[in-house]
Amino acid sequence: MWIGYGEDAHRLEPGRKLMLGGVEIASDRGAVAHSDGDALLHAIADAVLSAVGAGDIGEVFPDTDPRWAGLAGEELLERVLELAGAHPLRCERPRCGRVRQVRAVVTLDRPKLAPHREAMRRRIAELCGLEPADVSVAFKTSEGLAPDHVQARALVVLEEA
Amino acid sequence: MWIGYGEDAHRLEPGRKLMLGGVEIASDRGAVAHSDGDALLHAIADAVLSAVGAGDIGEVFPDTDPRWAGLAGEELLERVLELAGAHPLRCERPRCGRVRQVRAVVTLDRPKLAPHREAMRRRIAELCGLEPADVSVAFKTSEGLAPDHVQARALVVLEEA
Amino acid sequence: MWIGYGEDAHRLEPGRKLMLGGVEIASDRGAVAHSDGDALLHAIADAVLSAVGAGDIGEVFPDTDPRWAGLAGEELLERVLELAGAHPLRCERPRCGRVRQVRAVVTLDRPKLAPHREAMRRRIAELCGLEPADVSVAFKTSEGLAPDHVQARALVVLEEA
Ligand SMILES: [Mg+2]
Ligand SMILES: [Mg+2]
Ligand SMILES: [Mg+2]
Repeated sequence: MWIGYGEDAHRLEPGRKLMLGGVEIASDRGAVAHSDGDALLHAIADAVLSAVGAGDIGEVFPDTDPRWAGLAGEELLERVLELAGAHPLRCERPRCGRVRQVRAVVTLDRPKLAPHREAMRRRIAELCGLEPADVSVAFKTSEGLAPDHVQARALVVLEEA
Repeated sequence: MWIGYGEDAHRLEPGRKLMLGGVEIASDRGAVAHSDGDALLHAIADAVLSAVGAGDIGEVFPDTDPRWAGLAGEELLERVLELAGAHPLRCERPRCGRVRQVRAVVTLDRPKLAPHREAMRRRIAELCGLEPADVSVAFKTSEGLAPDHVQARALVVLEEA
Repeated sequence: MWIGYGEDAHRLEPGRKLMLGGVEIASDRGAVAHSDGDALLHAIADAVLSAVGAGDIGEVFPDTDPRWAGLAGEELLERVLELAGAHPLRCERPRCGRVRQVRAVVTLDRPKLAPHREAMRRRIAELCGLEPADVSVAFKTSEGLAPDHVQARALVVLEEA
């Protein structure tokens, strides 16, 4: 069993899309990012890389590379799962793993995210080859500490396939 | 084995009580909250919910519900343990678990919390049905990042009972 | 299997050394600290103490004790591993453990840390008696949330030796 831990944060600005867990959230502000700024999928992707000792998404998808401009969080996570030998459908590495548990916390002051929890869990579960019951996503407000940011932290458990 | 992760933060204001780990801390400021604002027990409760994929305490105890006004962190954690099928004494769910490890970090600039560590560990252990040796609580100052807040992060390990 | 979690943060100031993971980083600012301010090794040390229920480094190395002035992060982590019965070479406790996985995230706006990742992993692995492959270190920028700080969070997995 390997544990992985990842974090992400993006500044919010008017006129941008807000993606979280692969779900578009109706919001007057969205994430400033070279990619689509999906802090939740980015934190999970970093947790997967962390579990297999493979660096971080900043190294895999440098924001100076035009190939990754606007990169969707879902594609980013899929690529990371392949790279980590933990993709539910494709593994060409000698040692393949499977994601077994995803635990995440998203911090955002507004809008309320609870109505989107099940859609996020379903999407993350699908990407990782899990049941939604194996994916937890909690929501917090920043209590004044980060009113202009979205933040995410994630923990994953991987097992040998 | 299921892992869970939770976070909490509360703003501090003069004239309020400061509760942490079920222990009242003598302080000129306390947590602004609808409940008793016990950031440590709230983070642990969210970690327990996270371990079993059951949402978060914001959903279970909405701060718009007058029933939860002033809710003690100890009662909140007990209710969460029951809900998660991880209460040390009562389990009416088909699949019951037990908390085996609690690891937490509390960030607060003042007062010093170290003198209260053993009382917090004992109280958390009692609530979760553990030995104090299975509960770790570390203390940090914010180094200027959050002088007017108390923050907590917690990780729990659950096992099938 | 015991899990441990630790955090650290230091304010940055011109004219100080910046140590991370036992590696000196060329930087116009370094960590304000009583010790050498190595936030990464401090977070890992706190995670090790957390895994065995042994308090935190603030208690073990109080910043009021002149013995610990300028204490190197490497010496601090070695002392903590001994204290926790998890030193790879020396264990005089009845119950000895071994660190099996180290997962860390360092948040710093500049300079870029990626060129130092392998050196940090090698040094941490050596101290803990691991292969570098068992040590993950990810890097993030603060996105404006903490431009004058270095922060680290770490998770460790210990097993009975
Ligand atoms: Mg990101
Ligand atoms: Mg709270
Ligand atoms: Mg430190």
